[in-house]
Amino acid sequence: MQLGLIGLGRMGGNMRERLRAAGHEVVGYDQNLEVSDAASLSELAEKLAAPRVVWTMVPSGKITEDTINQLAEVLEAGDIIIDGGNSKFTDDAPRAERLKAKGIHYLDVGVSGGVWGIKNGYALMVGGDAPQVEHCKPIFEALKPVGEFGFAHAGTHGAGHYAKMVHNGIEYGLMHAYAEGYEILKASEYIHDVPAVIKSWREGSVVKSWLLDLLDRALDEDPELDALKGYADDTGEGRWTVDEAVRLAVPAHVIAASLFARFQSRQDDSPAMKAVAALRQQFGGHAVKR
Amino acid sequence: MQLGLIGLGRMGGNMRERLRAAGHEVVGYDQNLEVSDAASLSELAEKLAAPRVVWTMVPSGKITEDTINQLAEVLEAGDIIIDGGNSKFTDDAPRAERLKAKGIHYLDVGVSGGVWGIKNGYALMVGGDAPQVEHCKPIFEALKPVGEFGFAHAGTHGAGHYAKMVHNGIEYGLMHAYAEGYEILKASEYIHDVPAVIKSWREGSVVKSWLLDLLDRALDEDPELDALKGYADDTGEGRWTVDEAVRLAVPAHVIAASLFARFQSRQDDSPAMKAVAALRQQFGGHAVKR
Amino acid sequence: MQLGLIGLGRMGGNMRERLRAAGHEVVGYDQNLEVSDAASLSELAEKLAAPRVVWTMVPSGKITEDTINQLAEVLEAGDIIIDGGNSKFTDDAPRAERLKAKGIHYLDVGVSGGVWGIKNGYALMVGGDAPQVEHCKPIFEALKPVGEFGFAHAGTHGAGHYAKMVHNGIEYGLMHAYAEGYEILKASEYIHDVPAVIKSWREGSVVKSWLLDLLDRALDEDPELDALKGYADDTGEGRWTVDEAVRLAVPAHVIAASLFARFQSRQDDSPAMKAVAALRQQFGGHAVKR
Amino acid sequence: MQLGLIGLGRMGGNMRERLRAAGHEVVGYDQNLEVSDAASLSELAEKLAAPRVVWTMVPSGKITEDTINQLAEVLEAGDIIIDGGNSKFTDDAPRAERLKAKGIHYLDVGVSGGVWGIKNGYALMVGGDAPQVEHCKPIFEALKPVGEFGFAHAGTHGAGHYAKMVHNGIEYGLMHAYAEGYEILKASEYIHDVPAVIKSWREGSVVKSWLLDLLDRALDEDPELDALKGYADDTGEGRWTVDEAVRLAVPAHVIAASLFARFQSRQDDSPAMKAVAALRQQFGGHAVKR
Repeated sequence: MQLGLIGLGRMGGNMRERLRAAGHEVVGYDQNLEVSDAASLSELAEKLAAPRVVWTMVPSGKITEDTINQLAEVLEAGDIIIDGGNSKFTDDAPRAERLKAKGIHYLDVGVSGGVWGIKNGYALMVGGDAPQVEHCKPIFEALKPVGEFGFAHAGTHGAGHYAKMVHNGIEYGLMHAYAEGYEILKASEYIHDVPAVIKSWREGSVVKSWLLDLLDRALDEDPELDALKGYADDTGEGRWTVDEAVRLAVPAHVIAASLFARFQSRQDDSPAMKAVAALRQQFGGHAVKR
Repeated sequence: MQLGLIGLGRMGGNMRERLRAAGHEVVGYDQNLEVSDAASLSELAEKLAAPRVVWTMVPSGKITEDTINQLAEVLEAGDIIIDGGNSKFTDDAPRAERLKAKGIHYLDVGVSGGVWGIKNGYALMVGGDAPQVEHCKPIFEALKPVGEFGFAHAGTHGAGHYAKMVHNGIEYGLMHAYAEGYEILKASEYIHDVPAVIKSWREGSVVKSWLLDLLDRALDEDPELDALKGYADDTGEGRWTVDEAVRLAVPAHVIAASLFARFQSRQDDSPAMKAVAALRQQFGGHAVKR
Repeated sequence: MQLGLIGLGRMGGNMRERLRAAGHEVVGYDQNLEVSDAASLSELAEKLAAPRVVWTMVPSGKITEDTINQLAEVLEAGDIIIDGGNSKFTDDAPRAERLKAKGIHYLDVGVSGGVWGIKNGYALMVGGDAPQVEHCKPIFEALKPVGEFGFAHAGTHGAGHYAKMVHNGIEYGLMHAYAEGYEILKASEYIHDVPAVIKSWREGSVVKSWLLDLLDRALDEDPELDALKGYADDTGEGRWTVDEAVRLAVPAHVIAASLFARFQSRQDDSPAMKAVAALRQQFGGHAVKR
Repeated sequence: MQLGLIGLGRMGGNMRERLRAAGHEVVGYDQNLEVSDAASLSELAEKLAAPRVVWTMVPSGKITEDTINQLAEVLEAGDIIIDGGNSKFTDDAPRAERLKAKGIHYLDVGVSGGVWGIKNGYALMVGGDAPQVEHCKPIFEALKPVGEFGFAHAGTHGAGHYAKMVHNGIEYGLMHAYAEGYEILKASEYIHDVPAVIKSWREGSVVKSWLLDLLDRALDEDPELDALKGYADDTGEGRWTVDEAVRLAVPAHVIAASLFARFQSRQDDSPAMKAVAALRQQFGGHAVKR
């Protein structure tokens, strides 16, 4: 089927390729016109037959909001807009409402898979109404991995981004569990070959996973991880997951700790630990670093 | 090759089967003589040609210690004892030393894989000296999964159990990351079909793993997990991992939190929260539950 | 000076008493007319000379919002409204803006001290502009403890409630630190007299504090805390503190853990631990509780 | 009464002074003979009338062990040795046993108070048998703060050091709760005067404490804590407390997190966060720092 696809960066570009390989007709648009199939959003709209399906794959926040508003200008009643970016789930229902006023339908889709999706397929979590989900099935089928997994209609507007958010929250926790174990292995005098231990877990063990495969891969490339700084950004979903845990009164020690560790990794010095050092100096005359 | 195998429970019984299927000759011994191939340890020793290899697969602690001491009585210089149970890594070097005095060699092996190992193979982490590891390779080859993964010679005496301990510490963290995400999904009004979301992650997602497959399997059997109490024992390795993190000054927020959550799951009431309730009542006149 | 005081419950009632004891003229209003000094808000306004100062001490959220809106109807330009309740700090600036349109000034005050404030004085953290803070100083002086401490002008609109929010976040952490220590003492075979140990810390120790005094007091009344359930509500500030930590990228392991412990204390069973139990059963055939 | 006191450093020196001010006769010994009242342990023993009471106040570990062994050589049956250092509680019962063989009694005392103890008195937690505790009461009375608090006979051998260990574990948690709150205040655009907020809490608030007084004092000296690095050592008790929580199956999220934060404060780079960065790069092509 036909699809408009806006945003042809690392994710969007790969998705266009995977969709075309599956026989779909993709009209891509990007600010970078060199990779674009249309010179403007209106040209993109013209190139698609109604009812159109247009998928946005641009950075969450203002860029997504602006893109969808502009799209709404060039689309018409009956068309479907899909936001596949990492928008916050609370944006979706109001957005669906605004678009509905123009007769335009809306789906939110959480997309996992990173740079590997072009080959392995992307896990898709969809929020919205059943008829539109049904209508877009061929696209979802082409993007998702072969087989029975990799797709869920999670609920109504917002559920797709919500499921992806929790997915990423879990991802933070999983990564940090491996990371702590890795650090213990590395610190211990008992273990002479850390990469070999990690590699041994890739089959037959309870902790085997795709993330573990990637850790093994990273250690193959750089056995001591010497080339990297212990620094990690966070992209919003981890924070939102903790905020949701707080809102819903769910104890989330692990996910919160993983998020806090990222915060810590970006600090030059810790104001909290300065306060601890100040207190130790005050009551015990303990030595401090200046 | 020949192997003596002591302990034919859930793990040992399956391992005997997998080894025999690979063409090895296994003489099994168990307190339950109905499943035993020998009536006693000395009979087991007689049925094996020197140099013997005898693998113990019994509960860690006193039972393992007693079994190895008894074995040492019936074996002779040049034989090899392998402890495949979940012994604490600090037991291994002293044990190896004691056996060495009799000329008996020792290997410690961490075995992962649970009830699935019979089919998928077991991940094996080995501690000890290279000649004995080499000698026992055919056994390890038969037990481990097919392919390049599932086996590591991690270091000297204790390294096998150490690697398995860290493996289990990571396992605690992984399980709890999934568990927290699951609870958030379940608590949220956005998600209408939690099992479908979990299932969608099994392919194409960053969080795909064998544990996730098992969670999906559990939800297939009992979509609300109604049949289970939120109660989990711990088997030692989680505690030892946290103790090691403390000894080595490794921040292990995630693994510690996962362990503490298990402790909590076994408490009828929390003394700590009684203290919190008492304090709130004292300073604020806040209502308490009696 | 004159003060209107709305809300004469546990906090407001005590505050009226402390203010009157200091020689101030307080006109109190409460829904419960039996304790009220005025039959309505307009009567309260009539009883005060302009420029009026009216302090609201009612539950945060809709009740506070409604009260302030009604007050704005009966007050006039130049008057000052003070919100001393536990409102969320984000409510304050918009509220100040709305009142400013009518020429009414606004201060937000965080009030700590609980049921002990009537005797010891209340710690006050104030947000707003300097002229109004100055104007209300006599009231603040009467409410705060004697001496140099117990009062801060923390910043502009919202800063008072913000400081109180962080105060309560810290309070969660402090209470939980004592609570964990208490539980360890209680669990240990080494300590024969837990209340005596707690009591010994009240003077000369690094951990001495008012909260510790209260814990000792609670143990005097009920040495095993038998009469209490380990159950604690949370009143908003703890959640907001964690949300702020997340927004500001501040690692807040301790405060978050204390909040999560309260969530846990209110759960009949833990969905997360059900998932952990399910996983253990799946991979290891571990026994579960039903 | 007479007391031998070994170790005249920051703690021991102050204690000698406080004891003498209370009218006791203290014979001090230190490696630094300039501050010593005796040239050797045997001279110290000679200067005391039997039954002697000798208090060791030297660094825990080998130095304490050696000192007590040497003391045992120069003391005689009926004498009492008191270890007031931060020894591990598990050392006490075996030590008491060894001394008992020579008829020498033993008490373990946890001492809190830091450099302030000379003026305010020291909180004392004592482990051992009642007759010896009774015998040494005058010394305890002189060292402890005036009034009803500051002393507990916590249990038998080890209980004194155990109580002090938990005290310090709590101290870690308290300090970190304040530290997190301080960092949030500092990070927030709402709070214009962080030191003023901290100061306001010193009276009338629920979080008032001696540690808070010290934080205020530190901020008076250095309002931004610019002179300090966010770096903190740990002296053993925090680690032992977490180990005990693990042994006793007590959830100790707060104390563990505070300990881990100290570990983190001493790392130049975090191996765990390197692993996280490596994983993010592998699956998402996320930018890393080198």
